[in-house]
Amino acid sequence: MDRRSFNRRLLAGGAAVTAIGAAGATSLSLGPAQAAQTPPRTAPAGGEVRHLTMYAEKLADGQLGYGFEKGGATVPGPLIELNEGDTLHIEFQNLTDTAASLHVHGVDYDVASDGTRMNRGHVEPGATRTYTWRTHAPGRRADGTWRPGSAGYWHYHDHVVGTDHGTGGIRKGLYGPVVVRRKGDVLPDRTFTIVFNDMTINNRPGHQSPDFRATVGERVEIVMITHGEYYHTFHMHGHRWADNRTGLLTGPDDPSRVVDNKITGPADSFGFQVIAGEHVGAGAWMYHCHVQSHSDMGMAGLFLVAKPDGTIPGYDPHHAAPKAEGGGAGGSKDGAHAGH
Amino acid sequence: MDRRSFNRRLLAGGAAVTAIGAAGATSLSLGPAQAAQTPPRTAPAGGEVRHLTMYAEKLADGQLGYGFEKGGATVPGPLIELNEGDTLHIEFQNLTDTAASLHVHGVDYDVASDGTRMNRGHVEPGATRTYTWRTHAPGRRADGTWRPGSAGYWHYHDHVVGTDHGTGGIRKGLYGPVVVRRKGDVLPDRTFTIVFNDMTINNRPGHQSPDFRATVGERVEIVMITHGEYYHTFHMHGHRWADNRTGLLTGPDDPSRVVDNKITGPADSFGFQVIAGEHVGAGAWMYHCHVQSHSDMGMAGLFLVAKPDGTIPGYDPHHAAPKAEGGGAGGSKDGAHAGH
Amino acid sequence: MDRRSFNRRLLAGGAAVTAIGAAGATSLSLGPAQAAQTPPRTAPAGGEVRHLTMYAEKLADGQLGYGFEKGGATVPGPLIELNEGDTLHIEFQNLTDTAASLHVHGVDYDVASDGTRMNRGHVEPGATRTYTWRTHAPGRRADGTWRPGSAGYWHYHDHVVGTDHGTGGIRKGLYGPVVVRRKGDVLPDRTFTIVFNDMTINNRPGHQSPDFRATVGERVEIVMITHGEYYHTFHMHGHRWADNRTGLLTGPDDPSRVVDNKITGPADSFGFQVIAGEHVGAGAWMYHCHVQSHSDMGMAGLFLVAKPDGTIPGYDPHHAAPKAEGGGAGGSKDGAHAGH
Repeated sequence: MDRRSFNRRLLAGGAAVTAIGAAGATSLSLGPAQAAQTPPRTAPAGGEVRHLTMYAEKLADGQLGYGFEKGGATVPGPLIELNEGDTLHIEFQNLTDTAASLHVHGVDYDVASDGTRMNRGHVEPGATRTYTWRTHAPGRRADGTWRPGSAGYWHYHDHVVGTDHGTGGIRKGLYGPVVVRRKGDVLPDRTFTIVFNDMTINNRPGHQSPDFRATVGERVEIVMITHGEYYHTFHMHGHRWADNRTGLLTGPDDPSRVVDNKITGPADSFGFQVIAGEHVGAGAWMYHCHVQSHSDMGMAGLFLVAKPDGTIPGYDPHHAAPKAEGGGAGGSKDGAHAGH
Repeated sequence: MDRRSFNRRLLAGGAAVTAIGAAGATSLSLGPAQAAQTPPRTAPAGGEVRHLTMYAEKLADGQLGYGFEKGGATVPGPLIELNEGDTLHIEFQNLTDTAASLHVHGVDYDVASDGTRMNRGHVEPGATRTYTWRTHAPGRRADGTWRPGSAGYWHYHDHVVGTDHGTGGIRKGLYGPVVVRRKGDVLPDRTFTIVFNDMTINNRPGHQSPDFRATVGERVEIVMITHGEYYHTFHMHGHRWADNRTGLLTGPDDPSRVVDNKITGPADSFGFQVIAGEHVGAGAWMYHCHVQSHSDMGMAGLFLVAKPDGTIPGYDPHHAAPKAEGGGAGGSKDGAHAGH
Repeated sequence: MDRRSFNRRLLAGGAAVTAIGAAGATSLSLGPAQAAQTPPRTAPAGGEVRHLTMYAEKLADGQLGYGFEKGGATVPGPLIELNEGDTLHIEFQNLTDTAASLHVHGVDYDVASDGTRMNRGHVEPGATRTYTWRTHAPGRRADGTWRPGSAGYWHYHDHVVGTDHGTGGIRKGLYGPVVVRRKGDVLPDRTFTIVFNDMTINNRPGHQSPDFRATVGERVEIVMITHGEYYHTFHMHGHRWADNRTGLLTGPDDPSRVVDNKITGPADSFGFQVIAGEHVGAGAWMYHCHVQSHSDMGMAGLFLVAKPDGTIPGYDPHHAAPKAEGGGAGGSKDGAHAGH
């Protein structure tokens, strides 16, 4: 990545979007320093029945996207957050000119909501259908064995466009993140979604990968999804995570490996939280695929960690194009409250 | 996978086979619902010395297979189950026309049982030799450190045919599953083996991948092995597992990630148990490689979960060829008791 | 690997090198058998501020290497060991004819020590700069959440030569291992570094991969790093490890999978300890990439486990060239004490 790589916009692609309803923002008045002294907000128990409308649309550039509003489709599609126990009814409207669907990983659904053509889960152009996703908390089965819960960093994608595995739909952008939280899971200040889809990040061409911005001390959540044909290794500079369910160690006895680089293949997904700049300070921290030819071809972006005054040491935006601030910052402040 | 993909037989390939002796079947009279109310059967302590004859044979279609009886070779080879502490002596008879061997992952053996030509572990055509595999329980070493046990989802394969790494033997089918259980490990009702070998599943051509059948509520074990040249991502619809030793969370404090998609490469192996249809019900649930070109080329099969009355909602076997039921169901009922 | 593969030298490539200062060798008088009866040595608490000079040099064969002394560069570069809490100042002298750098995974550093051109972390030919790496122990944050420590099997590499991701530097050999230990971590008797870099092991051509030698009962540590373009699967014969932070199970409740084969991609790293020959005895145990074409092209070496009398059953060094014994044994006896 040479310095011309800076010549890109801060993109909202992959940003967390309020899933359903308005974001509760009660903690927004706390600055990072202050927040660091108080216990973090945590996910509540689930159990709600929620409704959502999702649209599949053709974008101006010929790509395809999912969105919560007509004309609002993005690549990746919007973040859907659930708490274990929630049920979500999604009215899916296919506004594209080809049959499409919504297939989800990780959560519970009857085979009718599978999103495959084989199970008649596809939706013709202009048509609508409702998919129902359920989630559940962990617990003991009647036989005494332990049943895992639905919590995880999951994702949804088309399973119909192009081939019966959705190869064409995924290639053009029909994918998005799903986070299912367990009661007590720590909530982030911001959530960013990074999808390695073939040789792109969030379907952006090489050397135009999205940058993500946070302030030192903020609790930033990354949802990392891979799609397409190739394996990749996801690497972040200056930040690490635990290779377990939450990306956070549960405590001193958690044996999980802490990593800053992880091999992934198509449809793998994982997530984690970092405290922006913890132990390393503000700066322009690269994230990239560490397969050498992939990074050289531009699968690299920046995690821009600013000081509280907004400056980023060593970062020279001289050649950068005007940035889309606000929504363009690439994440939802307090995104974790979306829908609750 | 188009609907023609249904045009395939339910295959015993990869099925669990009684490893040694007859299957103990005392719990077979319990239906799934009933079984769910009682504690599951668990593995006993090991410590037995067992003997087995294994044959390598050329199959009618030119592939190579391992089997416990002359003329009974299959691809994958039969499941070998052990309990930690068991010792297994395998008299290996090479009935093919080329030198071959038996190399195993995970268990203990002297270098003479390594199965490599370098260590003179190969067997000439028509010849016989005995390999000895040992296993051990975990425990403390004399120095106080913790010694892991042999329990795991392992596998055996040729290390001689074609090249000194067995590339030709593996390609033609000389591989099979090994499960070593720990005292107390939950035993499954059925065990299925799925091997992604190059672009095939269990050496079946594309779009002719094996289907596996179970009834809602049964405890189904999957042994997933990869071989050959390519990386893959193993995905199941509607079912998930823990990314740890057993595929089952040990309880609420187990930090392991729960997944439904996992990247694997040659000679990787893992296993897990699911309750068929738990939280999702009966149906034709795809399993497939999620590398898009691989699934499009036919690396996809079905996990057919039937209601107690045998019906599978949404599943239309209209175009399906006559199925080999019974043994053709692709798994050993109560396979976990094999050999005990 | 045919028997001609034995025709290679025992190589020091990848050997642990005393990182800083002389190795403390107080336990060297204990033989393995004796050592096995006493609690193993463990890592002390960190907190030291240490200084080191590192050189990048062109080697006689045109490759590039890092070293602690002028003229002493190796591929891989020397092992750098730290204890959580240590700070390391590295004066880096670039003796090559191209700009180069030192980028590290896993530890803490200000963005100025990032080693990327973007952050002006590169060093012109003939120039010098100091990189500072910090490490920290785990603990609770002010908000009550758990902060992971720096302990891990990490690595350093160039990020500048050839491309802005160091593709040319890595290809030619500019990489090396970093181990950060936690207070109480078990120390090994020997540490070996194995780097799968494109189709080489430690930049050795196919069929000339390094062998590593130990005596039965010794605690051997492997640091496994991947670089370059391809994915690999790392496999060892006769030895297994836990797929967690240390490669050692923490005890009976550790749910980690025990493996002898692991998929890795560029910049992934992991490490583990084995007791040489435990449960399997002395022998010439292969380690290799299990991607079949990679092993066939020579990505395979030997873990030579000798009896206390120095003999290796079944190992015929008849065709082997004279070996460089001593330093050439490929590991640092008591390497874990390096620098302490």
